[in-house]
Amino acid sequence: MSGSGRLPGIARRMGDIAPFHVMELMARARRLEEAGRDIVHMEVGEPDFPTPPQVAEAATAFIREGRVFYTPALGIPELREAISRFYAERQGVDVPPERIAVTAGSSAALLLALGVLLDPGDELLLPDPGYPCNRHFARALGAVPRPLFVDAENGFQPAPDQVRACWTERTKGLLLASPSNPTGALASPRRIKALAECLAERGGALIADEIYHGLTYGCEARTALALSDEAFVINSFSKYFGMTGWRLGWLVAPPRFMRDIEKLAQNLFISPSAPAQHAALAAFRPDTLALLEARRAEFQARRDYLLPQLRALGFRVAAEPRGAFYLYADCSALAPDSEAFAGRLLQESGVAVTPGLDFGENAPQRHLRFAYTVARDRLEEGVARLARHLGK
Amino acid sequence: MSGSGRLPGIARRMGDIAPFHVMELMARARRLEEAGRDIVHMEVGEPDFPTPPQVAEAATAFIREGRVFYTPALGIPELREAISRFYAERQGVDVPPERIAVTAGSSAALLLALGVLLDPGDELLLPDPGYPCNRHFARALGAVPRPLFVDAENGFQPAPDQVRACWTERTKGLLLASPSNPTGALASPRRIKALAECLAERGGALIADEIYHGLTYGCEARTALALSDEAFVINSFSKYFGMTGWRLGWLVAPPRFMRDIEKLAQNLFISPSAPAQHAALAAFRPDTLALLEARRAEFQARRDYLLPQLRALGFRVAAEPRGAFYLYADCSALAPDSEAFAGRLLQESGVAVTPGLDFGENAPQRHLRFAYTVARDRLEEGVARLARHLGK
Repeated sequence: MSGSGRLPGIARRMGDIAPFHVMELMARARRLEEAGRDIVHMEVGEPDFPTPPQVAEAATAFIREGRVFYTPALGIPELREAISRFYAERQGVDVPPERIAVTAGSSAALLLALGVLLDPGDELLLPDPGYPCNRHFARALGAVPRPLFVDAENGFQPAPDQVRACWTERTKGLLLASPSNPTGALASPRRIKALAECLAERGGALIADEIYHGLTYGCEARTALALSDEAFVINSFSKYFGMTGWRLGWLVAPPRFMRDIEKLAQNLFISPSAPAQHAALAAFRPDTLALLEARRAEFQARRDYLLPQLRALGFRVAAEPRGAFYLYADCSALAPDSEAFAGRLLQESGVAVTPGLDFGENAPQRHLRFAYTVARDRLEEGVARLARHLGK
Repeated sequence: MSGSGRLPGIARRMGDIAPFHVMELMARARRLEEAGRDIVHMEVGEPDFPTPPQVAEAATAFIREGRVFYTPALGIPELREAISRFYAERQGVDVPPERIAVTAGSSAALLLALGVLLDPGDELLLPDPGYPCNRHFARALGAVPRPLFVDAENGFQPAPDQVRACWTERTKGLLLASPSNPTGALASPRRIKALAECLAERGGALIADEIYHGLTYGCEARTALALSDEAFVINSFSKYFGMTGWRLGWLVAPPRFMRDIEKLAQNLFISPSAPAQHAALAAFRPDTLALLEARRAEFQARRDYLLPQLRALGFRVAAEPRGAFYLYADCSALAPDSEAFAGRLLQESGVAVTPGLDFGENAPQRHLRFAYTVARDRLEEGVARLARHLGK
């Protein structure tokens, strides 16, 4: 064995990278289930629907041929073209395939976008509350995430004033998420355009996280690509298309960045998953889209059920969230500390929800995130347990 | 549109990240093929064999159930256990599943290992010639790759003396690749142990790239895990297991790093591909391993054919490479510049090989990498074209 030497140390960056707390909570929920408890899962940021059968069939047909080899680093041309057509059909916007990089989930898309934009010491603005992993991508690259606090007053989306107030000479851009995780809030086209202009004045980049596009209720989210020629857009096959476990997403970038994005993708990833790419070719078929639209209606029905129920129990949700599958509820009238509250809810009443802790530093102790990624009857059971827990 | 602002700049790191030249060469080869030319491909670092049918069947059975969801960040427990058993059976070494992280290819394994070890400004030692992407992972993290030149004299593997000579207070470790890409050279167990001890004396980490394990001829490569308790080991389902397009690999790390590796994996990747993981469960079945051993014998037969042929044509290959599927040939007796030579070979004679340029700064202009990842009859055709090209 290696003898009596010193041991290598852990990189300092790891001290800044938090665990994803919801994963710990899910592990606790799993242990309770293994011990025979019934748990209502309202903590999971993953659609409960299976892979669309058309998509699964496309994958198995491809795999049966056996030729599951590396693909081009930016993805197979047919899929880049299919994504381009999808933008034309859904959004009426021209996004040539040459601007589209297919990636190993939106995670890889974000790493590529930030990798070509951020040097160590550079700053990136992010809304808070926001998806927890995003700030850690910046940290992994040696850059510094700067939170922009968002709340009911600014519609849970950052405003140009905030960007101006927080800008420094090291700021390189803003990561906008619309619809937002955890709030479900959308940024209006007017807001996105104003942010893009504010960033353009400063030579900063707008990076739009659009992974919940398609999951909006009573409206369509407008892509930043229709509002700015300079936007970076991150999207995913995970949420609307129901393909989480396949790990596939995409990045759209301004043309002059594509050569560097390709270089970085070649080096860091070699290629995205070949079965996932061939599966995704079937995601844009009319019959698949019809199925996905039916699922979207089901998500909307769940939201329409859950929101008034939570409000009746004493949770505050300022505005009706119009996208994603989350309600970010202020629980401060019910409990002083959302993390302890979530712990009790799970342990005593078998309801799993995510405390605000995962989403930043903006009043996390006042908030819980409810995900409506379970069937209606389970939501009803969860609400009944919440009511009993609260003595209502 | 976004108006008349300044444009965001490209991160400085991208100036240090080279394209993967072999990809450009493959694109040129493809264009020639589209124009009707027949090309002998000896440039591709990918086995030509299809996914083993047992593996493909395991994937399609899993996909047909439709439940292709996120998995735990470190992989499904059954696969971590299967990898652990494989170490016990093949190498007689005890690697508990808790030390194994399943990853999106060895690319993700390397990013995780370096992510928990390297801070910006830290240095990483790497053999040169070596796999080109490795140094760019260090650069992506803001760290500094330091080449250790290896050649026929030191068996194309770094020696403890070199580590001692290049060590600075910022050096965090050594990335060792055995068998090596591009040379196919193995590091002996004695060499690996000496390197591990030399690193332990300095508090440095040994990171062993073992992605070509299983593809050794007339010998077995010894895992660094049998020689040091402190080694990080990177492995892959791509090469021996023939699963390139699935993008699946693994990382083994010392126990005290696993919590941070899990945090980083949760944040950067969410989870590896679920279909790939379920496919890989069938990779360790006896009938699959029998097929893989037959393929290994075929690779050996190709090496045994190609090596003397190249030598007869005037290429110099110092020692018989014992692993991977590459011959790294000194072509300086035949041409002064390997890149120009490779260009002419492709254009004039329809033979695609990789110039040394991709593998570092150690006499790249003297070397070509030949991959024996095509069937014997194509190798013979390639050799015949080489002979004609050289007028022999």
